[in-house]
Formats: sequence, C-alpha cells, structure tokens
Amino acid sequence: HMARRKKIYEGKAKTLYEGPEPGTIVQYFKDDATAFNAEKRATIEGKGVLNNRLSEFFMNGLTNLGIPNHFIRRLNMREQLCRQCEIVPLEVIVRNYAAGSMSKRLGIEEGTRLPRPIIEFSYKDDALGDPLVPEEYIIAFGWASQQDMDDIVALALRVNDYLSGVMYGVGIKLVDFKIEIGRVWDGDFMRLIVADEISPDSCRLWDIESGQKLDKDVFRRDLGNLTDAYTEVARRLGVLPTNGPVANGDKPTLIN
Amino acid sequence: HMARRKKIYEGKAKTLYEGPEPGTIVQYFKDDATAFNAEKRATIEGKGVLNNRLSEFFMNGLTNLGIPNHFIRRLNMREQLCRQCEIVPLEVIVRNYAAGSMSKRLGIEEGTRLPRPIIEFSYKDDALGDPLVPEEYIIAFGWASQQDMDDIVALALRVNDYLSGVMYGVGIKLVDFKIEIGRVWDGDFMRLIVADEISPDSCRLWDIESGQKLDKDVFRRDLGNLTDAYTEVARRLGVLPTNGPVANGDKPTLIN
Ligand SMILES: Nc1ncnc2c1ncn2[C@@H]1O[C@H](COP(=O)(O)OP(=O)(O)O)[C@@H](O)[C@H]1O
Ligand SMILES: Nc1ncnc2c1ncn2[C@@H]1O[C@H](COP(=O)(O)OP(=O)(O)O)[C@@H](O)[C@H]1O
Ligand SMILES: [Mg+2]
Ligand SMILES: [Mg+2]
Repeated sequence: HMARRKKIYEGKAKTLYEGPEPGTIVQYFKDDATAFNAEKRATIEGKGVLNNRLSEFFMNGLTNLGIPNHFIRRLNMREQLCRQCEIVPLEVIVRNYAAGSMSKRLGIEEGTRLPRPIIEFSYKDDALGDPLVPEEYIIAFGWASQQDMDDIVALALRVNDYLSGVMYGVGIKLVDFKIEIGRVWDGDFMRLIVADEISPDSCRLWDIESGQKLDKDVFRRDLGNLTDAYTEVARRLGVLPTNGPVANGDKPTLIN
Repeated sequence: HMARRKKIYEGKAKTLYEGPEPGTIVQYFKDDATAFNAEKRATIEGKGVLNNRLSEFFMNGLTNLGIPNHFIRRLNMREQLCRQCEIVPLEVIVRNYAAGSMSKRLGIEEGTRLPRPIIEFSYKDDALGDPLVPEEYIIAFGWASQQDMDDIVALALRVNDYLSGVMYGVGIKLVDFKIEIGRVWDGDFMRLIVADEISPDSCRLWDIESGQKLDKDVFRRDLGNLTDAYTEVARRLGVLPTNGPVANGDKPTLIN
C-alpha cells in the first residue's frame, strides 16, 4: 500500500514527492517521453519501470566506487528514495563520440570518435530550450563557482570511466550521456553529488557490433519500439523487473 | 606460419619476444600458473589463450577511454604485439574489498568493503618475494619520482573506475587487481602507460550473487578448474576464442 506523498515538482519524465524523512525526496518514474524541448511527446508503456531499475543499478555501481550520488534505495516498481539536493541548473554532458547536437553544430558525422572525452554544459531552462553555455557564463552568472566546476568535471569524468566500462562489458558503446549534479550540506560543508537519473533516457547507447541504437534516439527518430530497446539494455546488464509486469507500476496516492 | 622471434625474457606466465618493429615486443601467453612466489606451479590448458584474449579486451577498453597502455594488437591465439616500455619495478595493487595478503596482514575478513579504494605497491623482485613497500622507499630508492607516483595513482584509479564498471555490468565484483606501469619516451618527453596484462590472473573477481571466485585464487586455493572460471568471465564479456580450440595455440619458432 502506497504512502500518501506530497508532490514537490512535476517534471517531464519524473514526478518528485516529499520523502518520508527530512532531506529526502521520492522520484516517481513516469512513462512519459519528450524530445526536442517537449515538442514531441508520447507515453511509452514500461519506460518508467525500466528507468527506475536501471538508474538504481547505475547509481549503486557509483556508490560501490565511492562516487557520491543521491540514490538511497528503490521503493517499488516506479519509485526510488533519494537524498534531496539543490540541483545545479546545468546539464553536464560527456561525449566520447560525436552525435546529436554536437554533430549538427560542427558538421561532424555521428559516431566519429572524439580525440578525448569532451564535457559541455547546457543551462537547464525549458523556456530557453536548455541552451549550450560556455563555462564563463556559468561562473559569471553564479550558477556554479570555479571550484564547483572543477569538481563537476572530475565527477563527470569518473562517471564516464565507470559507465563506459559497464557498457563496454555488455557490448554497448557509450556515445555520450548527461548527468545532473546537486549540492548537499553536511553542516557548513557543501558537497556535490550525482543526482537525477542515469538511464537510456540520458545516454546514447549503441550496440558495438551492429551500431543499433538502444537509447532515447529510438523515440526521437522513430526507430522502433523504445521499451524493447531499454529492455535489451536491462537484459544485458541482468537488470530485469522481477515483481510483476513492466507496465503495472503502483501509482502513489496524492494529497495535493 | 609463425615468424621467427628473438626471445627477450622468459617470465612465469608470459614470454617476451622482440617485436617486428623497433619499440615493440610480443607477449606470448603461456599456460603456466604459479602462486606463492612460484612455490606452487601448474600448467593449465587454455589459460594462456584466455588471458591473451581477455587482456586484449580490457586494454582496448582502456584505449577507448584514452587511458594509455601498451597494447597494439593481438597477433594470434597466444600472442599480442605491444609497445615496448621500461617497466617501473612495482606491482601497483588497487583494492576495493579486503582479500589475500591485506586480510592476512590486518586480520580483516576477506570481502570486507574498504572505506575507499586503497592503492599499495610491492617491489617487483622474485628473489625477495615482491615485498610490500611504502611510497617513501620507492622515492628514496629512485624506482619512481614523486611526480611518477602521482601519475601512477591517478592512472590506477581510472583503471579501477573503468574495470569495476566492466565487471559490475556482468555481475562480477572487482575485489582487487594488480597492474604494471611502463615508461615510454616521445623524444625527451616521458609518459607512463599501463603495461603487462589485465586478466583473471591479475584480478580478484567474485560473482556478485554467489560469491564464487572467478580468478587465480581458484588455482591458489584449489577451488576447482581454473580454465572453467576464466572461461566464465570471458563468456559473460562476450570474449570467447573463436578460431580453434582453446588449448591449441601456436608455438613460436625460436632462434635463440
Ligand atoms: N536528488 C534530487 N533533489 C532534488 N531535485 C532533484 C533530485 N534529482 C533530480 N532532481 C530534479 O527533479 C526533476 C526530475 O524530473 P524530470 O522529469 O527529469 O524533470 P525535468 O522535466 O525538469 O527534466 C529534475 O528537475 C531534476 O533536476
Ligand atoms: N610493454 C612491455 N614492455 C616491456 N616489458 C613488459 C611489457 N609488458 C610487460 N612486461 C614485462 O614482461 C614480463 C611478462 O611476463 P610475466 O610472465 O608476467 O613475468 P614475471 O614472471 O616477471 O611476472 C614481466 O616481467 C613484465 O614486467
Ligand atoms: Mg529531466
Ligand atoms: Mg607477471
């Protein structure tokens, strides 16, 4: 039986609820998919259940390595308990191969290996369409300090080493991914942790052999069944929803 | 037909030959297994073929991430072409969980999670039994400089993030591993690269679910068939010798 939870925020892919203890939140993974700044929308049965599981799996791997992140534990098919943080309003994007907006902006063919992992930032603002921003802007507008940015780059590169390894082991190329970073305080001491989600919604994943896309581009570009693609990722990683059918997640009872 | 190669060094698990071009060597992976400073010995049919393949796989993953290493290409079932380097005479050991000599020395139960990855060094000297050495010794005796050690620690931690990810993705816990580091020169500029091998000979690998050991401890502690264990690792990673039976590797023709 679900607890009654107070809604904090309704996002495009997840809803946030107040957690059972102060300093915690509950992320509820919806089946909603959006792309191109929410101009394209759909409901994809089972996506939320898969992403809840996959994000749990990836975050637990980060925890094992001592890479700080918000994940506490999964509550049910669609919900996970996380440490609440103050999100740095940036999408932190790490690219190993050119794809998507980078390929478009620079005229580089998708799949071209980059000379080294490249990190870029976009300002998280739906109204503006999450614009790419130079680091100078970030410091100047106070979204993060230079020290924060150094820490964020180091975190993002560690996540890349780890996540590239996870994917490589199951025959998948990690083309690029996006993470969000949050601030938490232990008294006066502020730390930066990986927040939000790590899932095929936030990564580009290509089968190493066939080049087949196993990520949200399947939806963006109408390449087939998105749930099948995410299920394939989950299957290879040995992460498969066991308790009940994928589409049948509990709905929380709202009180607001 | 095998090229005639000049032998450079006969090791416990591999033989080194001169490579076809200056600055290259060929590593030939033998089936020999040794433990406890070579007091325990055996020939394990197929081990060399598996380690040649697995080291190729892990080193290629490092290359993808821009982590410098000696691997150039695999030549055949038992041989790989590598960049020749001047080996830093250290075993660089990274531990995520207590096991082996650390458990013994500190009385910590095997499998105990360490507060963070711990790096230690032993001096590579068979006659001395590869003794554990404090960093102070390393600097004082000139085996590596302080700058080298900082670079080696950074390299080792990157390898740990990556390799932990690879193993995690296929349900294996990376308990600890050992790497060797070599120096290469681009003119006057010296760089440190990962050398030797990465294989179940040089890692402790435990199945996450069952705790089953899938590494050289199977041989050290007489826990079953070593080739079966390594084959299981290779199978999970999709790395399986395809051209011919595992035991049937080519022998090079020696000229010295
Ligand atoms: N640990 C956390 N604490 C607070 N907010 C978080 C945390 N993790 C993620 N968030 C925020 O919750 C929202 C998740 O829902 P999502 O559907 O992804 O939203 P959006 O449409 O804004 O991308 C995001 O705005 C994200 O920044
Ligand atoms: N790229 C390289 N260049 C030169 N020497 C190497 C390279 N890679 C590994 N070696 C050395 O080759 C030997 C490999 O054989 P091995 O059987 O492991 O020897 P050992 O018994 O000394 O451990 C090791 O001594 C290792 O230090
Ligand atoms: Mg989001
Ligand atoms: Mg050796």
